[in-house]
This record gives sequence, C-alpha cells and structure tokens, in this order.
Amino acid sequence: MGERKIIELILEQLDKMPEMPIPFGDDVSAYPIGKKQLLVLKTDMLVAETDVPKGMSLWQAARKAVVMNVSDFAAKGVKPLVILVSLGMPKDITRKGLEEIAKGLNAGAREYDTYIIGGDTNEASDLIMSLSVFGLARKDHVMLRSGAKPEDIVAVTGSFGKTSAGLKMLLENRKAPEDIRSSLLETVYMPKARLKEGLALSTTRAVTSAIDSSDGLAWSLHELSKASNVGFLIENVPLATEAIKFAEINGLDPLDLALYGGEEYELVLTVKPSLWDKAEKAVKSVGGNLIKIGKVTAKKQIVLEVKGERQVIEPRGWEHFRKH
Amino acid sequence: MGERKIIELILEQLDKMPEMPIPFGDDVSAYPIGKKQLLVLKTDMLVAETDVPKGMSLWQAARKAVVMNVSDFAAKGVKPLVILVSLGMPKDITRKGLEEIAKGLNAGAREYDTYIIGGDTNEASDLIMSLSVFGLARKDHVMLRSGAKPEDIVAVTGSFGKTSAGLKMLLENRKAPEDIRSSLLETVYMPKARLKEGLALSTTRAVTSAIDSSDGLAWSLHELSKASNVGFLIENVPLATEAIKFAEINGLDPLDLALYGGEEYELVLTVKPSLWDKAEKAVKSVGGNLIKIGKVTAKKQIVLEVKGERQVIEPRGWEHFRKH
Repeated sequence: MGERKIIELILEQLDKMPEMPIPFGDDVSAYPIGKKQLLVLKTDMLVAETDVPKGMSLWQAARKAVVMNVSDFAAKGVKPLVILVSLGMPKDITRKGLEEIAKGLNAGAREYDTYIIGGDTNEASDLIMSLSVFGLARKDHVMLRSGAKPEDIVAVTGSFGKTSAGLKMLLENRKAPEDIRSSLLETVYMPKARLKEGLALSTTRAVTSAIDSSDGLAWSLHELSKASNVGFLIENVPLATEAIKFAEINGLDPLDLALYGGEEYELVLTVKPSLWDKAEKAVKSVGGNLIKIGKVTAKKQIVLEVKGERQVIEPRGWEHFRKH
Repeated sequence: MGERKIIELILEQLDKMPEMPIPFGDDVSAYPIGKKQLLVLKTDMLVAETDVPKGMSLWQAARKAVVMNVSDFAAKGVKPLVILVSLGMPKDITRKGLEEIAKGLNAGAREYDTYIIGGDTNEASDLIMSLSVFGLARKDHVMLRSGAKPEDIVAVTGSFGKTSAGLKMLLENRKAPEDIRSSLLETVYMPKARLKEGLALSTTRAVTSAIDSSDGLAWSLHELSKASNVGFLIENVPLATEAIKFAEINGLDPLDLALYGGEEYELVLTVKPSLWDKAEKAVKSVGGNLIKIGKVTAKKQIVLEVKGERQVIEPRGWEHFRKH
C-alpha cells in the first residue's frame, strides 16, 4: 500500500470534526479559538532508517526533524510557537548519542525562535523522532493548499536541484567537483525552512495556495493542483548553478534534478496577479526572493514549457529515499 | 540508561522557554493564551512491542493509545479537544490491520468526545502510534503534580489490582477462575480514563496535586511526593474484590498487586481537607467515587500503615512490561 492509499483507508474510518477550519490533507491541522483565531497543529515523524541519509549526524538528524515540521508552518504562513518531542530509541543508544539528539532538537527549535516544552521517551527498534508543533494564527492569514485560481502567478522562494544532487552523491555515489561538493552536501545535512518568507507572505493576503517542496517541486505542484483543482503552466524552473554543474559532470538532466527531487524546503505558491508586487516586496523585506515560475491554468494539467517545447511534469519525487 | 536518566540528559541540553506555565516533568505541557488561559499539550507514544500485551487486538491497542493520553488530561483536569496521530507501521501492515487501527483510534477519540483531526504515516520496524492531544484550560483549573501540603487528604477514584492480575495472567500465565477471568482481562484490554472525574474535580479547586496511576499506585505516589516535596501516610488501599480473589488463588499479596502494578488509569490526588466534601460531591455528581486512602505528611517518606503495621511503599511498578 502506498502512503496515499494508507491515508485514504484511515480517513474512511474517522468521524470528522464538524466545521474543521483546515481540511484533512493540508499540511497542518487546526482548531478554532474564538471567531478569528486558529490553533494550528502539526505532527511529523522522522524515522532514521528512511529519513536520515548516510553521513548525517544525529545532531543534524534531530535538527532536521524540527526543520521539516517548521517548513510546513512556513508554507502555511503560521509562526510555530512550541514543540513537543516523542522519542523512540533503540535500547543501546549512548549517552553521547542522546545528547547530540537533544542538542540538535534544541538548535532547530531556537533557530526558528521556538522552544521544546515537553515530550516523552520510549524504547523502539528504530530511532524515531515524532514532533508536534503548535502555533496560533489569524484564520484569514493561513495559506492553504486550495485556493489557486486560473491566471494566478506560480512562484517559488529559491532555486532547485542542489538537494537532489547532494542525495545522489550520498545514495548513488555520484561525484561532484571539490568546489561544489560541500555546498551540495550542506543542503542535505542542513536544510533550512523558509519561515521568514512564509510569515511575510501570510500578511499580504496575496497568496492563494501554498505548500513546501519537501517531496520535490513536481510533487508539490501536483498536490496544489489536486487541492485547488487547477493546472499549471511552468515556464521557468530556477536551477541552482551547482545543480547545473553537477548534472553536466554526471550526464544528468538538471531539470530532472530540480523537478523530481525531495528534502528541499522551498515554498511553492500561487499569487494573485494584482498583489504580486506586494508579495514580492514582503519577501524581499525579510531578505528572501520570490521567483515567478509560471501561471495557474483552468485545465488540470501540469505542463513545463521551455523554449517552445512542452512536456508533462509527472507526479513523482525522490522515491528511493522517501516513500512517495 | 533508565528513562529518568534519559530525560535528565535531554533536559540539560534544552533552552527553557521563559515563564513556562507548567514545568517540565508534569504530565502535560502548556503555552499561555492571554492571561488566564492555557493551551495544554501532551504527546505520548505507544510502541506495540513494549506497550501492547499478548492478546490485545490492534483495535484495542489503538484505542488504548488514546486512553493513555486522555488519562493524563484527566489527571490535570483538562478537557482534551483534538488529537493528531503519527503512525509508524511495518511495511507488511495489512489493509485489515490498518482499518482496525483507524477504527480503534476513532473509537477512543469519540469515547472522550474528541476528534482526530490530522497526523502522518511512516514506515517503521515497530508498530508505533505517537499521539498528540490538545486542550484549552483556565490556568487556575489545571491540577499539577506539585502543590500537595501536609494534612491534605490523599484520594483515588477507584480500586486497584485488577490490571496487575490481568497482566499476570497474560505475561506470567497465572490462572484465574472463570467468573473473574474476563473482568480481569477487560481492565487490560479496555482501560478507561477518569476524564469525567478529573474535569469535575478541576472546577472545585479542592485538588492540590494530581497524577494518574498508569505506572502503578506506588510509582504515582512517589511522583507526587517528588513534585510536591511531601510524604504520604497511606492507611487504606482500595482493593478490587477480583484482585483479592486472584491473589488468594495464586498465593500473592493483593497489596502488591494494587501498589506495584501499572496500566491502571485511576486518578491519584491530594485534596484540601476543608474542600473534601465539595470534591467528593463533584465526583459523585458525574457518577464516580472519591476514596480517601491517607494523608499528606511533611516528612518526605511514603508509608503504608495497615492494622498498626508500617511498611515503606517502594518506588517501583510493572517493570517487565513498562520500562520504568
């Protein structure tokens, strides 16, 4: 069973809370507080065996567990406030290993101005870090996956392809020249969540739909397409120069690296054309970039058009490393 | 490393949120909303291998994952509102197994008037259900572990020993006569959280400290003792008649079953003597019982005195089944 099927089977069995402010299937959940505020909630589990690539330290893995949760808050434009951590650890965990994990969790939390305020520990076969993150938000500031309208501008917060390249170095023993090696690995070991950008965007009310690219750019576009019931015409995929160089040396298509990667935590969103300038300015004001990559179409198809040539962007990501 | 040492090592590495409304080490965590309200948070992980005894179905295990979290809310007098579930599942989980889990989670949630509103799924070696539960509470209604004062009355919400007996049947192949067999197993397979009782008590403001007995009555008393910096003189341990019968047949001390068990979800609390009647009435009004078992002492010792004989209550619980 794939993850999608698993989730579908589970949802069939659950009674739905009446008037859920954010539907199942978006990146976070919510509970209404008063008329205008939402308690925003998110849980995500890092399983070392499937989520931690070779060479990543326990400190980095723990920090990453925070980053991947914060990134979902970033995509929704919600400030994470506090974090709980449920740890499952093998019996033979060392004192040093444990301290590294705790330091990494704390570093991730403090990097995004949050605190770890509780949790529990358990014995398990795998090393597991299950995080729960909480925030408060104005209901009309939350950026959902649904809401994209034809003619909206599709935008991202950075270039793509470095993480794929880094993962290919680690998992497929691909080579990279000395001058870009550490930069590529850095994106894998030390991912960053675009929290400042997401928070800045949320107050503009320019964003009609949003998601992070943790499952790859192509996959994220498909998720937005499904939730918003629209298609996309992508005309510009921003490629990291290091990814282009890496692709050249390894005989790979840099577009493949950029589209079908994963573990890359940019934001992918759609913006009302009339509010584009406001959105761009908001992101720039916090030191970020908002890059146009295409537009929303009524036809529910995701197409890449480069130099007059069209190809369909497929719903796949980094399958060997992540489950979907 | 024991669980206590593990938690200590982790806490040493964490920056503390300024002015935490509920300290580390209590059963729930909290974040202030305004001046009088708390967002109350709790995460607890069920690992099938260590938390699910023989003969317990997946449906029951999933329901139990909810109950054990709700029980902590009950002990704090806080109404749980919504639940997130992070599932780790072996690759070979069947459709039927998955449906059972989802049904059990939903049944547990609905039993306590809450909803599951989100979560995620992952592949893991063990079957793992990591739940996060959220509630809102008036700050002055939350019942902490700390706060017991000498002369306060120690009370519980039910009798003890059935779960220990049931676990001994399952894990040590102990025998029980037909007429109590299913009742003993039922307490293991279908534990109940004392949520009504906890909520009724919280509004009386009679309770000075509280915990649930999920790690056994003895262990719970030691936790309250540590957090409140007091001791207890216990004069009456309410024994379930089935536990007495089971002990007799198996040549066991029924007091041992009652004190050193676990997975039994009664509330253990201390009550201001002047407000005892109010507390008792509140619990009765929701169909429960509040049973006096002793009193709080200034001397930090936990003593059982039965028929003039004194013995020290040791800080241990069901070690073979739970880790502590």
